[in-house]
Amino acid sequence: MELHHVGIATRDVDALASLFADLLGMSVVHEEQVDGMRVVFLRGDGGGRLELLEPAADGPIATYLDRHGPGIHHLALSTADVAAALERARELGAEPIDDAPRPGAWGHEVAFLHPDSTGGVLLEFVAASQ
Amino acid sequence: MELHHVGIATRDVDALASLFADLLGMSVVHEEQVDGMRVVFLRGDGGGRLELLEPAADGPIATYLDRHGPGIHHLALSTADVAAALERARELGAEPIDDAPRPGAWGHEVAFLHPDSTGGVLLEFVAASQ
Repeated sequence: MELHHVGIATRDVDALASLFADLLGMSVVHEEQVDGMRVVFLRGDGGGRLELLEPAADGPIATYLDRHGPGIHHLALSTADVAAALERARELGAEPIDDAPRPGAWGHEVAFLHPDSTGGVLLEFVAASQ
Repeated sequence: MELHHVGIATRDVDALASLFADLLGMSVVHEEQVDGMRVVFLRGDGGGRLELLEPAADGPIATYLDRHGPGIHHLALSTADVAAALERARELGAEPIDDAPRPGAWGHEVAFLHPDSTGGVLLEFVAASQ
């Protein structure tokens, strides 16, 4: 698998996108409103993506920010077959949050694993063509 | 800049490296003992690196684990010139933890920025040739 993006929870996606553009030389490559969140993807010159997540309504990101404050939220790995990755994860004793792949940001099929079963890291499998 | 690695704090670097090898198809590409930590770098088939950090003594990772538990700790971006990146960060109002580049894991020159000044994200600049 390939590291696809790092998800970051924020209360101000525009301010953080602007700071990371200036500080890290990253550019906005995609933005959308999905699942009660504003989502902005940034990409660096040499590769690597950040996914900035701002809650537009109650939901997991709003809850995360209330509990933990802003910061790194999850790690997404790309795979051609999210269902197979979930099945393999179950065999290895990891606990899926999503029983089956579901539509996520950028039109990608995604599924998350529970951090308690993966070293405290919220992992996302994503079937990404970009 | 390019996303170089994602740092993960853990109390058991061997168990987590083994899980991520099986779950994410990542392989150990480097390991060492540095700054009172055991450090293991993993790399995926398609690119992207994880840096697993286990405290071997008191220090920032031990403190982090006591306060937050295991999980994603920092984000490292590679740049040819860490000193210039630090200077630019200061100009943008970000607060360096390291006043000047210092030796880090894998023999790389590194410097960190304070997460309070970067959206809650602990950022590392790393002058990485690999």
